Amino acid sequence: MWWVNQVLSSFKRFLIGRPLKSAALGEQKLNILKALAILSSDALSSVAYGTEQILIVLATVSIIAYWYSIPIAVGVLFLLAALILSYRQIIYSYPHGGGAYIVSKENIGEKAGLIAGGSLLVDYILTVAVSVSAGTDAITSAFPTLHQHTVGIACVLVILITILNLRGLTESASILAYPVYLFVIALFVLIGVGLFKIMTGDVSATVQHAPIGAPVQGITLFLLLRAFASGCSALTGVEAISNAIPSFKDPAPRNAARTLILMGTLLALLFTGITFLAYYYGISPKHDETVVSQIAKETFGRNYLYFFVQGTTALILVLAANTGYSAFPLLAYALAKDKYMPRMFTIRGDRLGYSNGIVSLGVGSILLIIFSRGQTEHLIPLYAVGVFIPFTLSQTGMIIKWLREKPAGWVAKLSANLIGALITLAVLIIFFLTKFSQVWFVVIFLPIIVLAFKRINHHYEAVGEQLRIHPDQPALPIEGNVIIVPVAGITKVVENSINYAKSLTDQIFAVYVSFDREDEKRFEEKWQQWQPDVRLVTLQSHYRSVLIPLSKFIDTVEHKASENNYRVTVLIPQFITKKSWHNILHNQSSLLIRTYLIFKKKVIVSTLPFHFKK
Amino acid sequence: MWWVNQVLSSFKRFLIGRPLKSAALGEQKLNILKALAILSSDALSSVAYGTEQILIVLATVSIIAYWYSIPIAVGVLFLLAALILSYRQIIYSYPHGGGAYIVSKENIGEKAGLIAGGSLLVDYILTVAVSVSAGTDAITSAFPTLHQHTVGIACVLVILITILNLRGLTESASILAYPVYLFVIALFVLIGVGLFKIMTGDVSATVQHAPIGAPVQGITLFLLLRAFASGCSALTGVEAISNAIPSFKDPAPRNAARTLILMGTLLALLFTGITFLAYYYGISPKHDETVVSQIAKETFGRNYLYFFVQGTTALILVLAANTGYSAFPLLAYALAKDKYMPRMFTIRGDRLGYSNGIVSLGVGSILLIIFSRGQTEHLIPLYAVGVFIPFTLSQTGMIIKWLREKPAGWVAKLSANLIGALITLAVLIIFFLTKFSQVWFVVIFLPIIVLAFKRINHHYEAVGEQLRIHPDQPALPIEGNVIIVPVAGITKVVENSINYAKSLTDQIFAVYVSFDREDEKRFEEKWQQWQPDVRLVTLQSHYRSVLIPLSKFIDTVEHKASENNYRVTVLIPQFITKKSWHNILHNQSSLLIRTYLIFKKKVIVSTLPFHFKK
Repeated sequence: MWWVNQVLSSFKRFLIGRPLKSAALGEQKLNILKALAILSSDALSSVAYGTEQILIVLATVSIIAYWYSIPIAVGVLFLLAALILSYRQIIYSYPHGGGAYIVSKENIGEKAGLIAGGSLLVDYILTVAVSVSAGTDAITSAFPTLHQHTVGIACVLVILITILNLRGLTESASILAYPVYLFVIALFVLIGVGLFKIMTGDVSATVQHAPIGAPVQGITLFLLLRAFASGCSALTGVEAISNAIPSFKDPAPRNAARTLILMGTLLALLFTGITFLAYYYGISPKHDETVVSQIAKETFGRNYLYFFVQGTTALILVLAANTGYSAFPLLAYALAKDKYMPRMFTIRGDRLGYSNGIVSLGVGSILLIIFSRGQTEHLIPLYAVGVFIPFTLSQTGMIIKWLREKPAGWVAKLSANLIGALITLAVLIIFFLTKFSQVWFVVIFLPIIVLAFKRINHHYEAVGEQLRIHPDQPALPIEGNVIIVPVAGITKVVENSINYAKSLTDQIFAVYVSFDREDEKRFEEKWQQWQPDVRLVTLQSHYRSVLIPLSKFIDTVEHKASENNYRVTVLIPQFITKKSWHNILHNQSSLLIRTYLIFKKKVIVSTLPFHFKK
Repeated sequence: MWWVNQVLSSFKRFLIGRPLKSAALGEQKLNILKALAILSSDALSSVAYGTEQILIVLATVSIIAYWYSIPIAVGVLFLLAALILSYRQIIYSYPHGGGAYIVSKENIGEKAGLIAGGSLLVDYILTVAVSVSAGTDAITSAFPTLHQHTVGIACVLVILITILNLRGLTESASILAYPVYLFVIALFVLIGVGLFKIMTGDVSATVQHAPIGAPVQGITLFLLLRAFASGCSALTGVEAISNAIPSFKDPAPRNAARTLILMGTLLALLFTGITFLAYYYGISPKHDETVVSQIAKETFGRNYLYFFVQGTTALILVLAANTGYSAFPLLAYALAKDKYMPRMFTIRGDRLGYSNGIVSLGVGSILLIIFSRGQTEHLIPLYAVGVFIPFTLSQTGMIIKWLREKPAGWVAKLSANLIGALITLAVLIIFFLTKFSQVWFVVIFLPIIVLAFKRINHHYEAVGEQLRIHPDQPALPIEGNVIIVPVAGITKVVENSINYAKSLTDQIFAVYVSFDREDEKRFEEKWQQWQPDVRLVTLQSHYRSVLIPLSKFIDTVEHKASENNYRVTVLIPQFITKKSWHNILHNQSSLLIRTYLIFKKKVIVSTLPFHFKK
């Protein structure tokens, strides 16, 4: 239905703007401040739940155990520093981006690359679903009457973000920059005021906390590791920048590295501040209030500053989803270019984004939200594991690279990546040991997606081989053409088809399918008068099917023709109606016949348009 | 996706059976007993609610008013007799069926025919929805835990009936005959035992009823007319037989007339019996129990005979829907043959039923059930009006016919139809006067559907004119052919297309769309070496669209070609993959281009299959 396309096309223009020239690609690129806004919302938003995840585990022992959050946070910061340093090296070594997938593939091997790529792809879908759901929860907590519409609101948010991204990167960035910076400002104000109050002794008497080092009964290494693993969820999103280097303004690698350092510093400061305040205030995780909300209430009371912190937190959670939208299409493009994913992911859309990747991500995360009924919190561990697998693989890849290339200063570089690899591997092992019930799905899913990638690759390779021209095996020249014209009566459409066929060949069969003898005879006589020089073949159909006898006849002709290296072409008319609703009045059987012949027979199917004038 | 069709095809075979030869049409025809079962379930099932509808209106005055149900029932019986007589005359005058639509169209005019046809079509959909919902209510009343699934159960029932009908008329009849006859037997036993008990004085003391003729305070003519109109809902379905004469065994008209008389007699006896018992037992309509159920409980107590009556009532209500399935496709066929409805309704399916009509009816009634959430009771008046409009029109048509033809004994015949017309018109007026709030929708809907019929007819007539061959205006002979081959690289597929083009003409344009100058130059050089004798046109695309520059080029060529009476053919390759999932890896852009060209350009589009071997 062409009119559907027309309507959709205008609507698309309205939603995503006029098409951009390919040469406009440069203008769409990101400076450091915009890149920070686009690529760090995922990482920075983790501050909103990272500390809480640690405290939830410690709360299973006792309130006294909360002081452990300080050393655990130090551990997480150490891990963050190692990751930032390692990714800085990756950025400079791989200025064209691709991140974990390319680093692992080039240095370790195809399979490692596919594992990294596959887990990242799924991870981006999880990022979108989890972040948008968390943001929706923040909204529905503020307006409880909306609670029953959680899934609907989350889906609408995903659709909005998808549309923003289809409009193109820079315009999205302009919109997305404010909430990220507002969130950073809000948390800095919160931490600053909190620290000032602590230093001036202006802290309410109810606040109590155990001193660091206080002995805790029942604490185990397993539990501490579990708390550490939970805290590591604050590090999701760190890899986003290294995947997106091609989106940066020149010099891309230097700008990307600076953005990375900036982001790491912000993340470290915010995470430290929030964790310290939570410890100092002696805050316990609550079912119905987040840790950040408790800290803000303790610091400001429930005034406008409190709502400012809560509002920007909700916003950044929703926008964290945008990181996925920057990274997923680029990764899908890299995989598709290497023939591991369908070719359509390599096509840039009207607004220069990889539209198919953007739309797939939107659809995937909407499905996740719907199937989990908006309760995606239990997907967080899965999503953290999905990040640490490519972390580990890319660090390992870098180690192999340094060992192989041994450039100037390789020992220092190797050490950085070695530390990174060991720590991320350790975290991964801790995840599998302490949270297996929540992450086992990865073990099943990753082999499946890697197999799918390989199957697709195998098919494209096989196709490439079949399409390749071997100059020593030239195709046999075609000796001639047979044209089959199915006719349903004596009309202008048939005249049209017969004339076209006559202009191409003199081997023409007009085929008429009749349902009874009388009709057959009558038609043969009429045809003889009208087109005496065109052979008419009449076929009897006992089952009122035109397709079956026609198909049999075509087989016979095709068999004979291919023996003599003739080609068989079937002409099918297509009515082009003036008004779109007229389509339901025509073409049903010609559409059916055309589809059948194209897929089932070795014949060329020619569609002759017949344009109605009214 | 061809595999979808294959799966659907096997599944269809399983559900609706192997295809039947056209010659088998005779074997599928109905004898009187089967016809009674198929065509009378709608009319007979009305007994289950006809009496109740009268009592509901009378109950608004007082219990004493119930005796009026007896004279009202006599009025309904009189109307029934008039209808049966008039329809008997229609059957003999129109042995090829078509009923109200054909009778009104031939004698009154096109518009009257379309009004009759349109209201009947919608009515059949209402029949199915209302009957199935009522049957479902009976089931869920018996098993209250199922109540929350009312809509689901009703939809499954409609689907089952649709499948039965796609299997073909006779087989449906064999299945459907039992419940109808069981219902008739059940009600005769009920009435017989009830009358016997009354005659032997074996009636419980609680039963009381006012004597016929007792004065009632507050009774008005309006109320009595309203009660009468409600009672007329017992007559819906009477017309089914006259619409379905072609389905009868020969001699069709006589068999149909006999079936009609038989059905009328059964309906009269059952309706009289139930109404009398209800009056004599002094039964009041209750919200949670039907009148028939109360009578059966009073007569038998809650024993197996009671459940037999209730069970067969539920069954016949569901099966009443089947009347719609016999009549709707035949009426749609008649309308489509006269070019008032899309042509597809004239095609008999594999099992000789008009599949498109059957499926449309099923889909329409499922939509009605879903939109009314299974509560279709308030549609009953609408549905009764939808029956009385064609009743009135067909009687009027018959009057005009007798006046015009004046055959032997025309005065008697005229009188029968005149009485019929006057009574049905009166009922119609009573409906509009007493229940306007429930039937106003007809006034809006009928003009719309009549307009739609006329628009469709107008289009088909215009098309017919455009397709007609005028021997004095022969088409200009085609002078030659230009073939455009869009190429994306140098592959076997392109070789294939070029060879095919060469075998047809020497006017070939290979068209390459490039996104940058370098690529363009490189390709031109390679082409020059490979196919020096085929003209290559390279087009620059700034917006990464292949379609826009290609489309412009085609326009230019087509403009030039049509001046010289040349035809332009565009060759589009189609990969035929070995495995169906491979389809998602190919053909997206060729499908897009093909669809665009077919609908938007005056060029012939040839699809060249390229069969992958693996």
